[in-house]
Amino acid sequence: MVMIQKYLSQNRQRFLDQLKTLVRFPSVSTQPDHRRGVLACADWLTRHFRALGLEVDLYPTNGNPIVVARTPRPRAGAPRVLIYGHYDVQPPEPLELWKTPPFEPVVHGGNLWGRGASDNKGQFFVHVKAVEAYLKTGTPVPVNVTFLIEGEEEVGSAHLETFVKQHAKRLRADYIVVSDTGMFSKRQPTITYATRGIAGLEVRVDGPSRDLHSGVFGGSVANPALVLSQLLAKCVDANGRVTVPGFYAAVRPLAAWERRMWRRLPFDARAYRAFLGVPALAGERGFTPLEQRWARPTFEINGLTSGYQGPGGKTIVPAWASAKISCRLVPNQDPGKIVRLVCRHLRKICPRSVRLRIVSDHSAPFFEPPTGPGARAAAVALERAFGRKPVFVREGGSLPILDAFKRHLGGEIILVGLGLPDDNWHSPNEKMDLDNFQRGIVMSAALLGELAKARDTRLD
Amino acid sequence: MVMIQKYLSQNRQRFLDQLKTLVRFPSVSTQPDHRRGVLACADWLTRHFRALGLEVDLYPTNGNPIVVARTPRPRAGAPRVLIYGHYDVQPPEPLELWKTPPFEPVVHGGNLWGRGASDNKGQFFVHVKAVEAYLKTGTPVPVNVTFLIEGEEEVGSAHLETFVKQHAKRLRADYIVVSDTGMFSKRQPTITYATRGIAGLEVRVDGPSRDLHSGVFGGSVANPALVLSQLLAKCVDANGRVTVPGFYAAVRPLAAWERRMWRRLPFDARAYRAFLGVPALAGERGFTPLEQRWARPTFEINGLTSGYQGPGGKTIVPAWASAKISCRLVPNQDPGKIVRLVCRHLRKICPRSVRLRIVSDHSAPFFEPPTGPGARAAAVALERAFGRKPVFVREGGSLPILDAFKRHLGGEIILVGLGLPDDNWHSPNEKMDLDNFQRGIVMSAALLGELAKARDTRLD
Repeated sequence: MVMIQKYLSQNRQRFLDQLKTLVRFPSVSTQPDHRRGVLACADWLTRHFRALGLEVDLYPTNGNPIVVARTPRPRAGAPRVLIYGHYDVQPPEPLELWKTPPFEPVVHGGNLWGRGASDNKGQFFVHVKAVEAYLKTGTPVPVNVTFLIEGEEEVGSAHLETFVKQHAKRLRADYIVVSDTGMFSKRQPTITYATRGIAGLEVRVDGPSRDLHSGVFGGSVANPALVLSQLLAKCVDANGRVTVPGFYAAVRPLAAWERRMWRRLPFDARAYRAFLGVPALAGERGFTPLEQRWARPTFEINGLTSGYQGPGGKTIVPAWASAKISCRLVPNQDPGKIVRLVCRHLRKICPRSVRLRIVSDHSAPFFEPPTGPGARAAAVALERAFGRKPVFVREGGSLPILDAFKRHLGGEIILVGLGLPDDNWHSPNEKMDLDNFQRGIVMSAALLGELAKARDTRLD
Repeated sequence: MVMIQKYLSQNRQRFLDQLKTLVRFPSVSTQPDHRRGVLACADWLTRHFRALGLEVDLYPTNGNPIVVARTPRPRAGAPRVLIYGHYDVQPPEPLELWKTPPFEPVVHGGNLWGRGASDNKGQFFVHVKAVEAYLKTGTPVPVNVTFLIEGEEEVGSAHLETFVKQHAKRLRADYIVVSDTGMFSKRQPTITYATRGIAGLEVRVDGPSRDLHSGVFGGSVANPALVLSQLLAKCVDANGRVTVPGFYAAVRPLAAWERRMWRRLPFDARAYRAFLGVPALAGERGFTPLEQRWARPTFEINGLTSGYQGPGGKTIVPAWASAKISCRLVPNQDPGKIVRLVCRHLRKICPRSVRLRIVSDHSAPFFEPPTGPGARAAAVALERAFGRKPVFVREGGSLPILDAFKRHLGGEIILVGLGLPDDNWHSPNEKMDLDNFQRGIVMSAALLGELAKARDTRLD
């Protein structure tokens, strides 16, 4: 490990420069305009892995390509470790709120600023650099590593599950390592053992065949924007409870050990409120903010569109109105079922004076009790890199593919996130903490060693 | 009148060409980008009036200029007739729904297609052409005509009231003629004796200081789009009644003669539903569609904006959400008071987990019993031009300035509209019926003569 540590400290600046190159690609998977940025990013990754000495394949899909890279000369009997990440990023909009351009990464105040710096380029890249350190110092990689880096995480990993199923034999692993979650706070290493799923719906209410003059015709037809508001208002009550019948039926109640563990976390509600900039916290009554975020399902509107949105007014009854909705789901809610329940509810309460159209997609929540050898190895590696024992938390966000990994590849899933609460994922001014980036590489190098030993223990 | 009629029939094509020129100006008052189109339109009008031999003044305001043109050599003792119109137009958006470009007028199927063709360029222009016929044939204009053509009707006539007050002495009139309303149906000449007012509000709900990741933070803060939906949903009930306390308090009930008159109108609810393209009619329970449109106040959402509206999804809690709202008001609702009631209601029901901001403006409804000499003169002129007696109706739309005319200028207000129900005011594919345009000129020429006689009668 001495040679590896020396290599890591000698190459800090170069690693950072490479991360900047990676962030410079506008690999936005949601927007077709950015298709070129997506492809260029995948291409760069492929060449980068190859230059490090890994065996690389770039797999085209009906969406964005998937990069698979393996350490050469597999060691028989050594554990197989699959490291997952995604090179696609969220849209940068609204652009006017960025202090520096989203795809021109800038180092400032110990952070690298740019879209995707933390979600997820900076995070999966620490593992790439750790493997590089083994390879470039001639140190045998203690486990057989396969990188699986996809380009559609931000659009629900549309093609990854099929891919994983098709290549299950070659991808199967003893451990699946993912850094795509957050640390509870700066310097507080964190292991995540559950994530929320998503039920996404786009709801469109169609009224008149065109925008109508609100004076001449208004009063005699339903206003689609008002009907949409009324439908949405009937999905959440004043206590923050989702009112869709059956919505909470399958929710796994919080275990006593989870509540106990989380109560010990130093959470300051006032600081949290100020950090978010809201006049008051809200959400489902009867739960703490951490419970609301990590263990309770939600019904969120992500966007509203209707009628005239320019300066001044336009006195119309708009022809249609639409809302983008996402429900975060928790174990053991079935996303397909939740979509059906929400659709049924909306159709039931929708007046017949408008037409209702709903498009949906979904992904499952994830839960892995943090008691396996992988979690123990991660705890050791994190403590070595950060000088503190990790805490165990759930995550409010979603990692759509974990459920598919679980079903098709087996293995223990280890979520060792390096994001910070103020990294601005999905928001303007995303950044990666550079201390976390460097410590993350140390953690990854240590984790690969610990996983080799963990396997040994189990074999004894 | 023979010479005038001959002049009118000889110049039909030229009048149409001139109207096309007028429609070509993109004089959109709501959008600052179109400022140049607004100014060019006012300038063209000024030069046009001058070429006809009228005395013209172009008055700058803090907004768009006002054009005032008078017939030369006033006749002492003859009635003073103020003819009002507006050269500004609604925004053309959504552009993709236009079959021909909005500012490239095209004649097709007996109509002139283009933004503003009917609302209001084609309508006020008939009066200009009627006066031209008198002047160019050497026939003395039987009344003293003043044209008052403004450029801010579609943004609430922001500067016209001040102007009217300042120039009240020179603008004062015995009759105020306005063609900015509709005919009940094609070939059915119509006199309108009441219009609705407007209370306009832009309601903005601010939550977190930036868009938040809906997974990481969602559940612990209020979603501004959901809060806005809940606020709006609480403004109208399932019976289409506005639930703002006090909203209906001052509404003038429909008189028996009005209900009787309107019941005789050939209104086909099925054809109306099909024309609007809605699955079913809606609105306030207990009123017919005509009553809903002409005599009942409304609460309409004109536009909704929040969060991500592009293709695909973006899993955020949006930082803010806003709605453009307009309430159509009826006699004798006080617009200022209605704005205060709506604001108070929204503030009362708004949770303290968000910030609420409201911007508002308003204009008064109008009511003039159709029993004066002006209405009688208009009835004669309309019958002469269209060969049928007019019907008397109210109008669902608003003419913000009528209330100010009433208060500052006196005189009987005569609303002789030439728009048709399918003219698509404020919608894509606006058009003016060319038969109405030509008959409108005949009507105006006759009306000026009838008004001269009507005055004579009163003086007797």
